[in-house]
Amino acid sequence: MEQSASKKEVEAIIQAIEAEGLQAFLNLGVERSVIAILGVVGIEKSELSDKWSVFPGVERISHVSEPYKLANRAQKPKGTVINIRGQKLGAKELIVIAGPCSVESREQTLAIAESVKAAGAHMLRGGAFKPRTSPYAFQGLGEQGLQILAEARDLTGLPIVTEVMDESDCDIAVRYADVLQVGARNMQNFRLLKKLGTVKTPILLKRGFGCKVEDLLMAAEYIMAAGNHRVILCERGIITFENATRFTTDINAIPVVKHQSHLPIVVDPSHAAGDFRYVSSISLAAVAGGCDGLEIEVHNNPKVALSDSAQALTPDKFAELMKQIKRVAEAVDRTVSTIDK
Amino acid sequence: MEQSASKKEVEAIIQAIEAEGLQAFLNLGVERSVIAILGVVGIEKSELSDKWSVFPGVERISHVSEPYKLANRAQKPKGTVINIRGQKLGAKELIVIAGPCSVESREQTLAIAESVKAAGAHMLRGGAFKPRTSPYAFQGLGEQGLQILAEARDLTGLPIVTEVMDESDCDIAVRYADVLQVGARNMQNFRLLKKLGTVKTPILLKRGFGCKVEDLLMAAEYIMAAGNHRVILCERGIITFENATRFTTDINAIPVVKHQSHLPIVVDPSHAAGDFRYVSSISLAAVAGGCDGLEIEVHNNPKVALSDSAQALTPDKFAELMKQIKRVAEAVDRTVSTIDK
Amino acid sequence: MEQSASKKEVEAIIQAIEAEGLQAFLNLGVERSVIAILGVVGIEKSELSDKWSVFPGVERISHVSEPYKLANRAQKPKGTVINIRGQKLGAKELIVIAGPCSVESREQTLAIAESVKAAGAHMLRGGAFKPRTSPYAFQGLGEQGLQILAEARDLTGLPIVTEVMDESDCDIAVRYADVLQVGARNMQNFRLLKKLGTVKTPILLKRGFGCKVEDLLMAAEYIMAAGNHRVILCERGIITFENATRFTTDINAIPVVKHQSHLPIVVDPSHAAGDFRYVSSISLAAVAGGCDGLEIEVHNNPKVALSDSAQALTPDKFAELMKQIKRVAEAVDRTVSTIDK
Amino acid sequence: MEQSASKKEVEAIIQAIEAEGLQAFLNLGVERSVIAILGVVGIEKSELSDKWSVFPGVERISHVSEPYKLANRAQKPKGTVINIRGQKLGAKELIVIAGPCSVESREQTLAIAESVKAAGAHMLRGGAFKPRTSPYAFQGLGEQGLQILAEARDLTGLPIVTEVMDESDCDIAVRYADVLQVGARNMQNFRLLKKLGTVKTPILLKRGFGCKVEDLLMAAEYIMAAGNHRVILCERGIITFENATRFTTDINAIPVVKHQSHLPIVVDPSHAAGDFRYVSSISLAAVAGGCDGLEIEVHNNPKVALSDSAQALTPDKFAELMKQIKRVAEAVDRTVSTIDK
Repeated sequence: MEQSASKKEVEAIIQAIEAEGLQAFLNLGVERSVIAILGVVGIEKSELSDKWSVFPGVERISHVSEPYKLANRAQKPKGTVINIRGQKLGAKELIVIAGPCSVESREQTLAIAESVKAAGAHMLRGGAFKPRTSPYAFQGLGEQGLQILAEARDLTGLPIVTEVMDESDCDIAVRYADVLQVGARNMQNFRLLKKLGTVKTPILLKRGFGCKVEDLLMAAEYIMAAGNHRVILCERGIITFENATRFTTDINAIPVVKHQSHLPIVVDPSHAAGDFRYVSSISLAAVAGGCDGLEIEVHNNPKVALSDSAQALTPDKFAELMKQIKRVAEAVDRTVSTIDK
Repeated sequence: MEQSASKKEVEAIIQAIEAEGLQAFLNLGVERSVIAILGVVGIEKSELSDKWSVFPGVERISHVSEPYKLANRAQKPKGTVINIRGQKLGAKELIVIAGPCSVESREQTLAIAESVKAAGAHMLRGGAFKPRTSPYAFQGLGEQGLQILAEARDLTGLPIVTEVMDESDCDIAVRYADVLQVGARNMQNFRLLKKLGTVKTPILLKRGFGCKVEDLLMAAEYIMAAGNHRVILCERGIITFENATRFTTDINAIPVVKHQSHLPIVVDPSHAAGDFRYVSSISLAAVAGGCDGLEIEVHNNPKVALSDSAQALTPDKFAELMKQIKRVAEAVDRTVSTIDK
Repeated sequence: MEQSASKKEVEAIIQAIEAEGLQAFLNLGVERSVIAILGVVGIEKSELSDKWSVFPGVERISHVSEPYKLANRAQKPKGTVINIRGQKLGAKELIVIAGPCSVESREQTLAIAESVKAAGAHMLRGGAFKPRTSPYAFQGLGEQGLQILAEARDLTGLPIVTEVMDESDCDIAVRYADVLQVGARNMQNFRLLKKLGTVKTPILLKRGFGCKVEDLLMAAEYIMAAGNHRVILCERGIITFENATRFTTDINAIPVVKHQSHLPIVVDPSHAAGDFRYVSSISLAAVAGGCDGLEIEVHNNPKVALSDSAQALTPDKFAELMKQIKRVAEAVDRTVSTIDK
Repeated sequence: MEQSASKKEVEAIIQAIEAEGLQAFLNLGVERSVIAILGVVGIEKSELSDKWSVFPGVERISHVSEPYKLANRAQKPKGTVINIRGQKLGAKELIVIAGPCSVESREQTLAIAESVKAAGAHMLRGGAFKPRTSPYAFQGLGEQGLQILAEARDLTGLPIVTEVMDESDCDIAVRYADVLQVGARNMQNFRLLKKLGTVKTPILLKRGFGCKVEDLLMAAEYIMAAGNHRVILCERGIITFENATRFTTDINAIPVVKHQSHLPIVVDPSHAAGDFRYVSSISLAAVAGGCDGLEIEVHNNPKVALSDSAQALTPDKFAELMKQIKRVAEAVDRTVSTIDK
């Protein structure tokens, strides 16, 4: 609005905008007031200018557009639902992905798979290729790990989610996995993203801990622009000055993503907290906050886990949490189904 | 543990610790394993050393202590309940504090007070002294604002929460307010904290946006060390690189505070988000995550509010949110009562 | 520019802008190119629009203005020089303020004052009122501390810089101090800022560790709007995820402040690093980066200092650093004078 | 020290430590004092314990070790010098790497190469494979770009630095480049790091913008553990809440790296600032702060650059900066040589 615009002029245009069924939002500034009009997607810009620039007091009409196109909510206002062997991510059902950080052995993996299935999980996670900050740490079992995961799927019926670290992992991993995961440290590995755009398997894309929501959506855009539209976003904590937890769960990212994109979003409370004692609280918060699913680390013996032991739940604690998740999910009108093999 | 400690030795000591009813937590390191023992408050350190240093493989026994004493959970393992004109903060009941950012006029304040009361709020917030980042912005009505708040309390029965900015505000404010609020920018105004330690009114202490949970607890310690033990902590968002929202709600802080301190904690989703569209989602997340209460901005006409207009809910949206809050609160075994005048 | 603007049209307008002696800056976007014109302060906005909106391809002309007016570079393009008992801060001379964190005793303070004077410092710092994160830590000597500082000034001729924590400290402190310091935790204590606007003593305003440069300039604006235009800005480190140092020195803030404001800026490497081993490196970086001065902690016996012992230099190390500072200052065309009593 | 240790006991042990030629550092705590002894690398831990645990008041002796071994300063206290076609990085000479963000064309690259050579640069940078946050942005010329760079080297004698994004780029890139660069977004692409450990070309490893110095050193450790010990670290700005610049140059990282590692460190002021107006100031700060080199973006026509146009210097501005760099470098006892073809 013009600096000289009167209160009446401001009110008149707000009424006119709302009369069109649109949301008007007034920001009174010291020098100038700005009225934001929400929800005008699909209207030609020139049409927009013609309509409102004639009101007295209007200084100019701006048009804001985001750099991501395919991931933009405007593309699919009702949201995307991704079907993974019958499980629907992005729909009314809340999906819980559970399992160990790394596939350490056949026995461990099958035991955990059966536990999380019994507790009500919908998918099994487990890493065969492990990105580790220390070159001296356990690096994963590779293809042998994928075979163990496939056996766990045969046993339990749970679809499997596993991480790929590099273009070269993809061809092997797609032969086994139901969902390919991109780790936080690879969110801007653009070569990997492009490669994942050429596969048909859905992608679970973890947010880089130093990356904004907009960067996450741009990374999804990379995969989508290369042909694979089945992208699941994952909030797993960002890096901040707070060191009481390993990362800070950006709970705000849930409504922000829901507002800006049509892609489903899951939350990983285990990596976000880095401490099993906080996992239940964060899980319930994420469900009430509107996420479409959770990815939770469960280990049958966290004390001797080969990676990230501090953050894994025992199967017992996970089973207890699943009951609480069900109650909170229902309180926000979501369902938590049980899976038959 | 010694670098040379065997797996058996590690397991033996873990069993022994657990046999004492304590929690043992193993962290396998490349060079050395560390076993953390939780919950040994009240045991003499020398006693502790005697008990476990005799096990084979033990290298040394350390004792960790936090710099806050009075605010420490160890002081009151069952948590503190603060009674405010019959409302119990920190107990099973979830307390919702609602109202405008600033007291702008008698009419506005009374109208909002009646709306939030009708929607089920338990306390009324409103600022008479306003900290503003610009010297050219509205600075609050001062004592006249406090009188309006008191009138709103007479009308609705809602206890009132209002901010003090400086030692010199306290003497006036205690005559009117049921809870004195310390704003985020004043969390380390140590002179103010000491003064608040000398009053009998409960204090709602907002976390500084650049401050760790530990700093928040140290600020509470200041007030408590000076004599006022009735401190309510408030998470209102921290400053991070993410700019899709004004601040980042540190949802992890809820379980962290619950673990480290006996003080109740409320969450302010309005300042954390800076955008009314995200307030409902964050509110529900906070309730499911275990907070004891919420502080939400409500304005009868956000478009013309004199401060923070973008983040205030209308009374209608607030009433709708209260219904959702009730459902989520019950799903985590908390109650949301209604107040009779 | 219009989305359809040709490369020729873009170049034509850039040439025209530069022909006026202004700086044009092209930002090629996916959807639209933006040309920023710098340095048009003082030109009427309508005049600006008339001039360039006639070029083909131009979509619209925007005018950007910052929320701070008095602190804005536009007000005083040549910069502000603050004269403190003959020392000129903001001029060609680099000013070094040195001394202990707290005034602990007469002996300690006079000894340090003589040491830093001998080493070439231009002002003496020392805290009589100390903001401490723990209520159990040393809180300063109060007015007695100010008297000791005044005695140190008589002895050495060095002007004295001391912190005020609260409105109520100001009346006493102005009777002794040559510069009043506002600590980082009080940068947005607006009541204190307003009070400092009413005194005649120059203010050294430390940046809050969770505050942007823009917030710092708005805090300066508070003091200036209340009447005191002699404000010295101080970068002392911001809070980030990096924990190898206590805070992260925002070295970028030096050119940013120089670009946006006419106020002088000093850097405090001691609090920024929290570790004496890094102080020399950061000090030299700040001088080369263009700061107008440094504020460095020096203690005659850091091992037994009552506050911030880890970051203080010994007088010997400080004397050595002063020699290096002189060399670097001269390499960027600044002078480092010596003070006669 | 024991809680009950007397001041005398504390002083006695400090004297004894210093008598051995070691640095003792006292941290007086509320509950307990800690004396840190620096510089005892190479002494057996048991020897250490025997020596000082006998002093009265000593509670226990701890031994701190970092997770990086090969990159640790303790391995090479005098620092590593990397020889690149005769240029010595990590020695007394300051090395300036300059050139465009992307190789856009033969003409552009040769022209810039000649300009930066004439201005005194020591190496030429240019990207053939470009990581871009948007899939719709220019992605680089690939091998053709490498050929152009090699031609520029033939023309000017400047060694060339170019980025690899993926394992698969390495085999081609090593045939052309003198230094392989790892971008910030790939700092934890562990598969790429391992591959780079198998080549003989030196690696310039950029710090991830969300990563701590310790993470950077762990990434270097990956490359070194796989066999390539010639790693150059690069500080290029971290992500913080400050948005006046694109990233925040962590100037503290220079002394921290110098203290913890023997690897050379260069600073990239262009990406850190994201704004050409701040590049000179940050460059000079980095040199005075003790870096071993700079990597600066230079473009002959920044207004039409295909990437990062806002941050590139023109050849003229770069030539002017080189003169200032020389003066500051000499002020901290470094030399800036000129290169003969």
